[in-house]
Amino acid sequence: MPATIERKELEDLQQDLEAVRELLRRQRLVEDPLDRPPAQDRDRAGSAAHKAHLAELRGRLDEIHPADIAYILEALPIDERLTVWDLVKAERDGEILLELSEPVRESLIRTMDSDELVAAVETLDTDEIAELAPDLPDEVIQDVFRALPVEEREQLRAAMSYPEDAVGALMDFDVVSVREDVTLEVVTRYLRRLAELPDHTDQLFVVDREQQLKGVLPIARLVVTDLETQVGDVMATEFVTLYPDDKAQDGAQAFERYNLVSAAVIDQAGKLLGRVTVDAVVDFIRAKSEAEQLSKAGLREEEDVFSPVWASVRNRAPWLLLNLFTASCAAWVASRFEGTVSQIVVLAFLMSIVAGIAGNSGNQTMTLIIRALALGQIQADNVRRLLRKELTTAALIGLAGGLIAGGFAYSISGRLGLGAVMWAAMVLNLLVGASVGMLVPLLRWRAGRDPAVGSSVLLTFATDTIGFFIFLGLATLFLL
Amino acid sequence: MPATIERKELEDLQQDLEAVRELLRRQRLVEDPLDRPPAQDRDRAGSAAHKAHLAELRGRLDEIHPADIAYILEALPIDERLTVWDLVKAERDGEILLELSEPVRESLIRTMDSDELVAAVETLDTDEIAELAPDLPDEVIQDVFRALPVEEREQLRAAMSYPEDAVGALMDFDVVSVREDVTLEVVTRYLRRLAELPDHTDQLFVVDREQQLKGVLPIARLVVTDLETQVGDVMATEFVTLYPDDKAQDGAQAFERYNLVSAAVIDQAGKLLGRVTVDAVVDFIRAKSEAEQLSKAGLREEEDVFSPVWASVRNRAPWLLLNLFTASCAAWVASRFEGTVSQIVVLAFLMSIVAGIAGNSGNQTMTLIIRALALGQIQADNVRRLLRKELTTAALIGLAGGLIAGGFAYSISGRLGLGAVMWAAMVLNLLVGASVGMLVPLLRWRAGRDPAVGSSVLLTFATDTIGFFIFLGLATLFLL
Repeated sequence: MPATIERKELEDLQQDLEAVRELLRRQRLVEDPLDRPPAQDRDRAGSAAHKAHLAELRGRLDEIHPADIAYILEALPIDERLTVWDLVKAERDGEILLELSEPVRESLIRTMDSDELVAAVETLDTDEIAELAPDLPDEVIQDVFRALPVEEREQLRAAMSYPEDAVGALMDFDVVSVREDVTLEVVTRYLRRLAELPDHTDQLFVVDREQQLKGVLPIARLVVTDLETQVGDVMATEFVTLYPDDKAQDGAQAFERYNLVSAAVIDQAGKLLGRVTVDAVVDFIRAKSEAEQLSKAGLREEEDVFSPVWASVRNRAPWLLLNLFTASCAAWVASRFEGTVSQIVVLAFLMSIVAGIAGNSGNQTMTLIIRALALGQIQADNVRRLLRKELTTAALIGLAGGLIAGGFAYSISGRLGLGAVMWAAMVLNLLVGASVGMLVPLLRWRAGRDPAVGSSVLLTFATDTIGFFIFLGLATLFLL
Repeated sequence: MPATIERKELEDLQQDLEAVRELLRRQRLVEDPLDRPPAQDRDRAGSAAHKAHLAELRGRLDEIHPADIAYILEALPIDERLTVWDLVKAERDGEILLELSEPVRESLIRTMDSDELVAAVETLDTDEIAELAPDLPDEVIQDVFRALPVEEREQLRAAMSYPEDAVGALMDFDVVSVREDVTLEVVTRYLRRLAELPDHTDQLFVVDREQQLKGVLPIARLVVTDLETQVGDVMATEFVTLYPDDKAQDGAQAFERYNLVSAAVIDQAGKLLGRVTVDAVVDFIRAKSEAEQLSKAGLREEEDVFSPVWASVRNRAPWLLLNLFTASCAAWVASRFEGTVSQIVVLAFLMSIVAGIAGNSGNQTMTLIIRALALGQIQADNVRRLLRKELTTAALIGLAGGLIAGGFAYSISGRLGLGAVMWAAMVLNLLVGASVGMLVPLLRWRAGRDPAVGSSVLLTFATDTIGFFIFLGLATLFLL
């Protein structure tokens, strides 16, 4: 919505935030109160100066774009956040909630009662309501549902029925459709009656009486074509369509590949259901890449930087417990070689090198395979070739890197045999890392699962446990 | 370019690839030749049947969108890839090169001579030429340069002058600009003369005689407004502008935040230089998130899945060598406690648990901090609060997780004291992980560097080395 922002340059945003914080500070609502509940702040209101400050802050907030208010809310500690949230005009609540990250959104929804929520949500389009729905209490959804006109109620039902990772979840219903047998003159008059086109309308959809999609009329073509022309003569009949059940990921790839601004969503019978626009795709790409980064670090969900400590503990502990378990298993395997280690203590210091490097190398393989799978570059008939390539690469790196590691082992122990065991263990464990790094995502992918999820725990488990076993086993065989 | 694709559904792409491979197979160019140079294949040409097959393949390729040809090329092994590349119409080479990933693009450019390259590149817009420039031989760029009209030569010079991570690098010059004092009728007639609008033209730019940007005229507003109206009366005067020196990252965030399709790029004096469109932003977001994923795994660049083994080794070895070095340092630190470990061998098996869990936990902290920095949620005055929160979280997880780890240590050794040492070492090392995970990205960010780069190596180095030191040190103090 560029039209609502005043000639914005990028630094302005930081300035908006600073101004809001300054206003908060001036009215002495902020005195670095670590965990003071916000209610106290608000009780202290009353003086005329205080009211004037609040009014100034409110005025400032009214001028800020909803997405920027969302940014400011996320950058504020909980107490200041609630103060600002109270000052925002109620009719903007819905738009702002949409822009917020999940945990911050939840923290604000928790402070609102049903009536406020219903009022906030009712200002939104049905596809936007569907987006908020998972975070809303059931009775709010029921109320909103009842208040909607029949057509929109159907839309909301449809939008809520698609899984989060389907094209249907990205779809909106703001389609402008026209008939094939009218002139552009008629189309133009029709558009003028609408007074405003939905955002991201780069094309009109041409449908017949049964809502079957016949073609698309790009706006750019409409404005350069003579108005006497019939829609059917100028419409494009070659264009990208999506099904609501397509994977959102695949839909996003189509947008990237063909540089789309919008795409029609049709059902199996070819009936126009809605459209996907590039802004929804951009949000999806961003959210997906963030979710991947978080899950790779073992975080169950995004964290509000100002969330209470216990929420952080709950978010992070499960992954750490899992790692504690796998690390203990590896330690247990190593402890079976207590006799060997007690005779050659230096083995104890070298074994984590063998495990660690193979883990790193396997992680490189895994990252590339997951990426190639996502891009569709891996087919059944090139898997063997790839496996051979990855194993050769790992072996070469192991042969060279193992020499260095073996040299280090020799220098630290003075035993040539130990250097040789180190070298052999490095090569073998790098092969383990490459195999696991390749096979785990491939097998998960074949089974129709997300190849990225959980792969890294399995990889570390394998390179640690098997690495210890190989290294200490070889030492037991050859050095005792 | 939706208009060039025939009613495409998503599965079609896989089918295109299959069809191309099938055609390659039928003409017996493909017999799973692992590393056979492609020249041999081409020598075998000649028979009429062979020529017919090639013609069929060529015809099929002509119907495929450049982005899809790029996809097919990336999914083919080197020899088949070169066969297909030779069959693609020369005038499409430029467009296809643009869509390819870096390593595959380079591999194809290497097979082309200067004349072919100049011919391919000359079909492109100046901003696209600038994008390819880093991969092209100097003499090709010189030739292209000389062949361009003066205005475009200036554009190319400008486009090539911006660093890769600046808005200028995303900019194109396909702006349609109009004057404030004409009617929409005049604008419409002007557009009809253009016959075609540049892709992603969702707004016209309103400039004065000095090319100063005065406003924007959204196409959506143009089509719904009476043609007698003057541009100045209907144009939007509030809109987002970018400077060519803005960080591309910040520009991308503006597109996400305000759901833009295009944005004007102006110089400090307010003169219109060009525009950024959402497709460039989508490509940028995707490329950036991929680069982050790769660099996190220690890969210097994207790998062509079919690249030769030595290229993979070169790409992966530096990171593994660095890790080998840090792991050896940690091993050396631990080996200083050889006396302790030789008396209590079980310490050897437990010390990697202490190091590993703190590394995992520190990585969680680091991931969240890097994310919060990227979103601008961290200001100078909330850093201390955050640090306190992260340390508290780590301490709580350490106290609880340390109990489990301590219990395991007790059960494996039968020594209560060892359990207590394990517990204390876990708590302390988790605090080390949280501090390093927070401070390294923060300090890099303060120094104006990318907070993500190299942070994880430093983190593992700290949690390993200090973890070994704490655990074995405590054991030396209390258990001997």
